[in-house]
Amino acid sequence: MNAHPKPSPAGGDPAIVLLSGGLDSATCLAIAREQGFTLHAISFRYGQRHEYELDRARRLAEAFAVRSHRIVEINLAQFGGSALTDPGLEVPKHDSVDQVGGDIPVTYVPARNTIFLSLALALAEVVGSRDLFIGVNALDYSGYPDCRGPYIEAFEAMANLATRASVEGPRRLTVHAPLLHSTKAEIIARGLALGVDYSMTLSCYDPGPHGIACGRCDACLLRQKGFALNGIVE
Amino acid sequence: MNAHPKPSPAGGDPAIVLLSGGLDSATCLAIAREQGFTLHAISFRYGQRHEYELDRARRLAEAFAVRSHRIVEINLAQFGGSALTDPGLEVPKHDSVDQVGGDIPVTYVPARNTIFLSLALALAEVVGSRDLFIGVNALDYSGYPDCRGPYIEAFEAMANLATRASVEGPRRLTVHAPLLHSTKAEIIARGLALGVDYSMTLSCYDPGPHGIACGRCDACLLRQKGFALNGIVE
Repeated sequence: MNAHPKPSPAGGDPAIVLLSGGLDSATCLAIAREQGFTLHAISFRYGQRHEYELDRARRLAEAFAVRSHRIVEINLAQFGGSALTDPGLEVPKHDSVDQVGGDIPVTYVPARNTIFLSLALALAEVVGSRDLFIGVNALDYSGYPDCRGPYIEAFEAMANLATRASVEGPRRLTVHAPLLHSTKAEIIARGLALGVDYSMTLSCYDPGPHGIACGRCDACLLRQKGFALNGIVE
Repeated sequence: MNAHPKPSPAGGDPAIVLLSGGLDSATCLAIAREQGFTLHAISFRYGQRHEYELDRARRLAEAFAVRSHRIVEINLAQFGGSALTDPGLEVPKHDSVDQVGGDIPVTYVPARNTIFLSLALALAEVVGSRDLFIGVNALDYSGYPDCRGPYIEAFEAMANLATRASVEGPRRLTVHAPLLHSTKAEIIARGLALGVDYSMTLSCYDPGPHGIACGRCDACLLRQKGFALNGIVE
C-alpha cells in the first residue's frame, strides 16, 4: 500500500476491470493501477433501476485515465427475478446493518457476475489481456452466491478452457478478486491509501433524484459502517 | 432413439435449450423433448452477420411448441475479433472439408458459448430449471475451444457455485451436451429418427440473400458431409 497515489504506469500488461461505479470496484481499479496494469474498464447497462452508477463509473474511468472504457448493454431485466431490475419488487430497507445477511436477498440478480465476467472475458481475449479484476467481497456483502471464493476459482478454471488462449497461449488467465477477504472498512482504508476519491462512487441500491443515496438499503448500511470504522462520516 | 417423433410431454421439468437455428441445436431440442423436458428455448441476436438463423430458430421453436422462446440482444460485435460479427473480416471458403480444422479459425467469436451459457443460466434460475442443453460437438466442428468436453464440465462446475440453487437448492444443475462425441452424420441420423425437419435449419456462416447457404464455408462443408454419409443430398 502507498501513502500517495502513483500515476498509472505506461506500457503495463492490459487488465480488464469490472467497474460498477461503486466503492468496491473503484478500489479494485486503484489496486490494478498500483500493480502496474494498463486499465481497460467495462461497465454494464443491464436494466438496473437507475443510471447514476454508470455516471459514476464514467467519472472514475476518466479520473483513472483508463486506456478504454466500454459500457455494454445487456438487459437482465427481461429475465426478472431481482429487485434491482424489476420495478415491481421493492428494495428492502433494513435501517440496521444487523439485519443484513442470512438468506439470499431479493436484490440478487440471477447469474449477474457470471454474465459480467463472461463479457469481460470476451474483451480480455480481444485486447490480449490475461487479467480480470472484480471487486467482489465475501465478508461485508449481501449474501450473493457469486461473491464467494470458490465461485471465483471455478470461473477462472472455466475461463482457462474457454478461450483461444487455452489452445494457443502460454500464460494462464487470472481472475483477481483482491477484496474477497476484506471487510468494508479494510477496503476503504486500502482505497484511501491509494488515493481513491470515494465521493465519486455510489453504493446505494435505490438512490433518489440526483443519485442521492437512500441511506437505508443493505449497500448503504455496509458502506456507512465501513466509513465509520475508518473514523469518517460521509 | 425413436422411429417417430413423440409429442412433447406435459409437465416435465423445465430445460433451457440454446437454439441457434442450426442443425446441432435443432437436434438438441429434439433430444431434450425426447427426454421429457418442458422446453424453454433461448436465442441470441449477438451481432451476427445475418438474421436468417434467428428466423430459423423462431420456426423451430414454433414447430416444437416450446413453452417459451426468448431472443436476447447482446452485441458481441462491439468487441470485434471474429469474422462472424465483423463485416471487415472475410469468412473463409475452403471448398474442401479436408481444409477444416487445425488452428482456431477467424469465425471463432471470443467467449461466445460462455456468454450464451451464462445468459441461459440466468434464465434457468428464473424459471426454476436445473438443466441446460447446448448442441456443441467436438468431432466435426470448427476447432473452437468452447466446444470441448472439459470446457463444458468446467462451466457446469462453475454454474453450480454461481447461483441461488448452490446455496438453497437440493439438486445440481446439469449442462447437457448430448452431441459432444457425435460426428455430424451421427447427429443427423439421430435427429432424423426424432423427426427433426432439417430443412428448417441453417448452418451457413455466410448465407446469401433469402438465407441461401454459401455451400463453401466450414459449417456448410461439415453439414454436406454429414448428410452425404446418411445418403442424403440436400
